Amino acid sequence: MRDGVHASRLVAAAQRLGSLGADALLVAPSPDLAYLAGYDPMPLERPTVLVLTPDGEPCLVVPRLERPLAEDCPAAGCLRIEAWRDGEDPYAVIAGLFPHGGTVALGDRIWGVHVLALQRAAVAARWISGAPVLGALRARKDVHELDALRRAGAAADAAFADIAAMPFGGRREVDVATDLAHLLVEHGHDRADFTIVASGPNAASAHHEPGARVMGAGDAVVLDFGGSLDGYCSDTTRTVAVGQPSAELAEVHAVVHEAQAAARATIRPGIEIQEVDRAARAVIAEAGYGEQFFHRTGHGIGMEVHEPPYAAEGDTTVLEQGMTFSVEPGVYLSGRLGVRIEDIVAVTASGVEALNRSPRELLVVE
Amino acid sequence: MRDGVHASRLVAAAQRLGSLGADALLVAPSPDLAYLAGYDPMPLERPTVLVLTPDGEPCLVVPRLERPLAEDCPAAGCLRIEAWRDGEDPYAVIAGLFPHGGTVALGDRIWGVHVLALQRAAVAARWISGAPVLGALRARKDVHELDALRRAGAAADAAFADIAAMPFGGRREVDVATDLAHLLVEHGHDRADFTIVASGPNAASAHHEPGARVMGAGDAVVLDFGGSLDGYCSDTTRTVAVGQPSAELAEVHAVVHEAQAAARATIRPGIEIQEVDRAARAVIAEAGYGEQFFHRTGHGIGMEVHEPPYAAEGDTTVLEQGMTFSVEPGVYLSGRLGVRIEDIVAVTASGVEALNRSPRELLVVE
Repeated sequence: MRDGVHASRLVAAAQRLGSLGADALLVAPSPDLAYLAGYDPMPLERPTVLVLTPDGEPCLVVPRLERPLAEDCPAAGCLRIEAWRDGEDPYAVIAGLFPHGGTVALGDRIWGVHVLALQRAAVAARWISGAPVLGALRARKDVHELDALRRAGAAADAAFADIAAMPFGGRREVDVATDLAHLLVEHGHDRADFTIVASGPNAASAHHEPGARVMGAGDAVVLDFGGSLDGYCSDTTRTVAVGQPSAELAEVHAVVHEAQAAARATIRPGIEIQEVDRAARAVIAEAGYGEQFFHRTGHGIGMEVHEPPYAAEGDTTVLEQGMTFSVEPGVYLSGRLGVRIEDIVAVTASGVEALNRSPRELLVVE
Repeated sequence: MRDGVHASRLVAAAQRLGSLGADALLVAPSPDLAYLAGYDPMPLERPTVLVLTPDGEPCLVVPRLERPLAEDCPAAGCLRIEAWRDGEDPYAVIAGLFPHGGTVALGDRIWGVHVLALQRAAVAARWISGAPVLGALRARKDVHELDALRRAGAAADAAFADIAAMPFGGRREVDVATDLAHLLVEHGHDRADFTIVASGPNAASAHHEPGARVMGAGDAVVLDFGGSLDGYCSDTTRTVAVGQPSAELAEVHAVVHEAQAAARATIRPGIEIQEVDRAARAVIAEAGYGEQFFHRTGHGIGMEVHEPPYAAEGDTTVLEQGMTFSVEPGVYLSGRLGVRIEDIVAVTASGVEALNRSPRELLVVE
């Protein structure tokens, strides 16, 4: 159906190695490998490594017992497969595929045990991060990827609509989290990956683990949830009020709402992504909550829920059509409440498309 | 309930650093971190690293937005938590916790992106694998861990009994795989992790991905499946015949069956684990299938489905009471069939306990 997509990704990655000054790029099982070769085995202690060089044929080094699996992968036709047997030294095999003393770029997720063993097998090599190549390639989504992200966003919105219609008061966070996970799958996700339900004082913990706290009137509840659909991720946050919100909650929510809208309004091709962070931060600082917004405004999303670029001070990535990332400012008042609003957006030819359309106003739930 | 278990694991790990000549051990989110601190966040691009030194207080370096989560972890009372904010350099924080120019051991699963950044932040350090400390500690299971592994094994056996009573002929591999995953959960697993169903010629692929192949009379079907229960893994393999087995299948199965029994019979405290591999390999080589048994005989199991020690030539780990590992010889005849039989075993005070009791004879299914 998408013949050639992996072939052209492999070529694009190899071509970009020059810009890094790299003689090779090593990619272990990870979303990077799934992206480049359509191959997605479990990362294990037996190394599987794709070796790309600027000129040579790509080579996938695999454990002997996974050779048939590798031979079936979508990119098998455009790479050489080199199988090593238990008892052989796989790191020597890999090190034999790039120049002695060369500069070697690594995919972000290769395990440390493999990095250390490779560094021993190729002591003269210089090791650098392959993220500038892989991150840049993966950041610009093609139409098929955008379609999957759009469907994942719509499924997350549908799950939110359902959960917001269900009772919160008198139920535990973990019960709502379980319902939300089921709704994500019911509305089309292949898998629910996380469902944060953080109520009352717990809402001040940005990555709270849902627990036994029973929710009640006056609570703010942060719902931050996502899953995977056809290999692409959703990630959405809404903050709801159980019963009538306090004046403080209403005020904080209005500030975050305005900050999120301001951040989305800046997005267009040609600006640096750190501008998106600055726009959100300016609104929140102006309202006096600058210290209580202690995380970046967003992260790229695609095959990984967090991937480059980052809407953060210092990330000078220039936005291009097809980039997708989260916009999620938050304010956290320790011991009292927290508010975060998060949408996934896609950069278009002239502006921005929201992949989440759930209402962003403070919703009152039962 | 198990107060102090993490405290004593942290102390044991720190005490063993001397034997490695290490000044620090760095552990990222992984089963190692769950084992040491009961803390199991998602590994992400924002580094979370536990820093152990031979003398100092353990320190858990976490992203600011995960501080509340870290403060709730079981080991929070016996470690210091150091939070870094987005925009700060977390690697400088971590590098400040061990001596400049020291020897630093790394947990196996820390991501490469973090390894390279740490190596830049502490250029004078020497980097070594922490596996000799963490692997050795985790290899000897305590009574609670053995209990969880026993229950996981029993649940896997119950799932196998059910699946063997269901029809295979006329169904696709993927359908049986889906049923098997449900049965693993139904019988007590929290999660099914893998369900390999490899039939006919596919059975010759040791890590086959179940597909659309429809099974029929004469097929050998390798079922290799496992999940997690209370944080501990199961991993079991049986090979069944759809209808009456061919003479070749019956012969190969008998060889593998004998090899697996011979390997199990060697197990007792005091022998090197490579002896287990040699026992299985001798039987298979004697029968003329040596070249067709191209993987090691087994792997440790616990919080990870594959962990040290390995029943492989060259692993001289001396077996001790409480060690648990797989015994899984196989023979693969390319294009025709494959047979593997796998049990999890625990080393006892004087011998071995099988954690899987499913029949090991060649079962005929419909």
